[in-house]
Amino acid sequence: MRLEGGTSVILRVEMDKQAVTFGELVSLIGQQGGDIVAIDVIQPGRKTEVRDLTVSVVEPSVVETLSAAVSAMKGIHLVNVSDRTFLLHLGGKIEVHSKVPIKNRDDLSRVYTPGVAKVCLAIRDDPSKAHSLTIRRNTVAVVSDGTAVLGLGDIGPHAAMPVMEGKAMLFKELAGVDAFPICLDTKDPEEIIAIVKALAPTFGGINLEDISSPRCFEIENRLKELLDIPVFHDDQHGTAVVLLAGLLNALKIVGKAIEEIKVVVCGIGAAGVACSRMLLAAGVTHLVGVDKDGAIHRGVRYENEAWNDYAAITNPRQETGRLADVIAGADVFIGLSRPRLLNNEDVRKMKPDPIVFAMANPDPEISPEEAGSYVRVYATGRSDYPNQLNNVLAFPGIFRGALDARASTISESMKLAAAKAIASIVTDEELNEEYIIPSVFNDKVVPAVRKAVIQEAIHSGVARKIPSDFRNLD
Amino acid sequence: MRLEGGTSVILRVEMDKQAVTFGELVSLIGQQGGDIVAIDVIQPGRKTEVRDLTVSVVEPSVVETLSAAVSAMKGIHLVNVSDRTFLLHLGGKIEVHSKVPIKNRDDLSRVYTPGVAKVCLAIRDDPSKAHSLTIRRNTVAVVSDGTAVLGLGDIGPHAAMPVMEGKAMLFKELAGVDAFPICLDTKDPEEIIAIVKALAPTFGGINLEDISSPRCFEIENRLKELLDIPVFHDDQHGTAVVLLAGLLNALKIVGKAIEEIKVVVCGIGAAGVACSRMLLAAGVTHLVGVDKDGAIHRGVRYENEAWNDYAAITNPRQETGRLADVIAGADVFIGLSRPRLLNNEDVRKMKPDPIVFAMANPDPEISPEEAGSYVRVYATGRSDYPNQLNNVLAFPGIFRGALDARASTISESMKLAAAKAIASIVTDEELNEEYIIPSVFNDKVVPAVRKAVIQEAIHSGVARKIPSDFRNLD
Repeated sequence: MRLEGGTSVILRVEMDKQAVTFGELVSLIGQQGGDIVAIDVIQPGRKTEVRDLTVSVVEPSVVETLSAAVSAMKGIHLVNVSDRTFLLHLGGKIEVHSKVPIKNRDDLSRVYTPGVAKVCLAIRDDPSKAHSLTIRRNTVAVVSDGTAVLGLGDIGPHAAMPVMEGKAMLFKELAGVDAFPICLDTKDPEEIIAIVKALAPTFGGINLEDISSPRCFEIENRLKELLDIPVFHDDQHGTAVVLLAGLLNALKIVGKAIEEIKVVVCGIGAAGVACSRMLLAAGVTHLVGVDKDGAIHRGVRYENEAWNDYAAITNPRQETGRLADVIAGADVFIGLSRPRLLNNEDVRKMKPDPIVFAMANPDPEISPEEAGSYVRVYATGRSDYPNQLNNVLAFPGIFRGALDARASTISESMKLAAAKAIASIVTDEELNEEYIIPSVFNDKVVPAVRKAVIQEAIHSGVARKIPSDFRNLD
Repeated sequence: MRLEGGTSVILRVEMDKQAVTFGELVSLIGQQGGDIVAIDVIQPGRKTEVRDLTVSVVEPSVVETLSAAVSAMKGIHLVNVSDRTFLLHLGGKIEVHSKVPIKNRDDLSRVYTPGVAKVCLAIRDDPSKAHSLTIRRNTVAVVSDGTAVLGLGDIGPHAAMPVMEGKAMLFKELAGVDAFPICLDTKDPEEIIAIVKALAPTFGGINLEDISSPRCFEIENRLKELLDIPVFHDDQHGTAVVLLAGLLNALKIVGKAIEEIKVVVCGIGAAGVACSRMLLAAGVTHLVGVDKDGAIHRGVRYENEAWNDYAAITNPRQETGRLADVIAGADVFIGLSRPRLLNNEDVRKMKPDPIVFAMANPDPEISPEEAGSYVRVYATGRSDYPNQLNNVLAFPGIFRGALDARASTISESMKLAAAKAIASIVTDEELNEEYIIPSVFNDKVVPAVRKAVIQEAIHSGVARKIPSDFRNLD
């Protein structure tokens, strides 16, 4: 199993060939826990030679001891140690390309003045043409204010950029969507709403990302009302779609109907609210949300307005108490909270064949070891355990479909359709406790999600265009 | 000479080969003023055949009569007529690419979670690292509100997109700068300022574009104060830089010193103000601005605040009257106004060897025919006359230099240096009345402008980085 902490570095070394052999250096690096995966001779020479060694290490702490040992070796001068991840980020991870070259006056007069003027006038006379004659047709903004980035919290807009660039890469690589990162130097919800509204003419969709709760709810809801292009807060809805996909398959394994299960959702932030809503839309009736004050119920007036709304639609039996109380008799535990909140004793109180989705970052609510044999189906957000519930399964195909259908919104029913499409990739023959969800590199996922989203967009009337491959379908 | 209105269309025709020959069709198209430049057989057949004919026409109006004639021909069914410029704009003109592919789990863990977290934290701890570890190093926003697009006026943000996309292409193709178009759905200067300020963490520079006067002055000035990255309104400063470059070379031809000439600037909008300021910075002392109320002078209180500021620094002799009055004794006429404002009689009042830069859109203030033999050096903004003064000569190299030096601003002295660099591309041997400015396709321009801008950025202390190719220079 690959460790999440695995990394690789590039060591630039100057060797005095009379004092040390390359074999001795290789041995030392191996002894120190390094694995040489590439060698580049930078400056050959008869007496001294400069080489770049790409070295894999199982965890970052090894780099320090390894570097010290190499430095101390006789005949070796350690010029530099470069982290490959940092090298990969130099100058950013995305570029803007022209689709056609501008080689001469003729090209210039078509893509720019004077030819461009007639295209501008055509859009002025019919603004809907912007969807076909500009990048709007295929371009999504990845918008963040940097307030809730990964598990790192409020790190600010500059520091959020590498994540948003990575997201833009995934949009392009997995679904051919042109996405551009926009990190905003403001935390004021009103200002964020006004800015995204003003940016909309450039984009065909808005992917909100890593905006802290509860601000994210108002920002998303208001923008959905103001704009006629899809607005999708991925931390909420991407997570919800993938989680539902996993649950649909897990329920098949345990042979339970979604209408009859009791689900406990732990951590009622942005993702917790969205996942709960999605589960209710998918047919769950008995759902209890738990946060730091215990089970959320109608007997309390919460300061967080989102929790009052939440209480109104969940917890039909008005259960109270802490997680350890409400977990009793649950079929499914959904964790979107903090590491190690759930213990072995809690799991033992669940109904037979418990399903545990422990998605806390960076460590799950309960480790696979502690969940052990009590839990029938166990999933996390991590890539080093089986059943990784990763948003990357959802957002590329959802936006691909929404853009192709020129959808005005991404509705609940489109998200439900996306979840079912993701679940469907795992066949009945393949399905087992350790394989409930496809890999993010399974190339059937995006086409299946796209198709489901387009069909539902057409069915529910939010499609403004029928893609050519759907024109002969019913 | 190529006409600005030249265009090409693609005719899709279905031919009944028994009723008509291809030669007959070619003859007809020729007779109607079309020139077939490409033929693609779309659907071959023995009896009928479908072909796409790419046809050049000298002006768009020909397309209609030509299409009608083709339609009426026996044995021909005209399936479709597509304008090549429109075809080129389908889906927009730029794309967002990943610099590295994401092929497997290992790639993903470096460009996205979990590896990306350490890059985020490095920037959080030292925000200046965003200039090296994100796209900020090479990315410029092309921001417009669509209020003054080309000569078309206030066509709105959707319709402005094709121009901004074209600009982004030029940035990339000519100078390797990644530029992204941002068209804003607001005209409120305060809102535009707040938005651009909030967008700044994503970008290394802001190119303001096609924002109407006088709003553009406040927007640019306030943003320059608020941001520590270059803010450059191209309609003002790009125009000013290129105009000065042309003037420096024109003055060489007529053998006049810049300190001794009288310059009349006609049209005191955004470009007029910026050009006047640049000319004063370059050494012009006797400069008179003219707009619809006549010569701008200190004896009047103008509603347009920019004109009061303008009066304070120009027109040293407090000349009054209309263009026809103040043009008397001028050495140079700079037109940034409307077509046909200057006539033959006006030009005859100028000093010997008059220089006329008539840059109105789409037709110059005086035609080359009317300027005739009276004008010694004549330049316009058009590509179909000699001496095209085109902003494309300035902005790519200026931003290339500013980004490479991580400049905090683009100062007056950097713009002056850029103008001199552009002028210097035309050698003394090459210089003549019909060649005062290099072509936008001259590949010496961008490197020369970049070098001049970096040197001046270093000299004046606004550079925050010394590019590697400047480290051994003095």
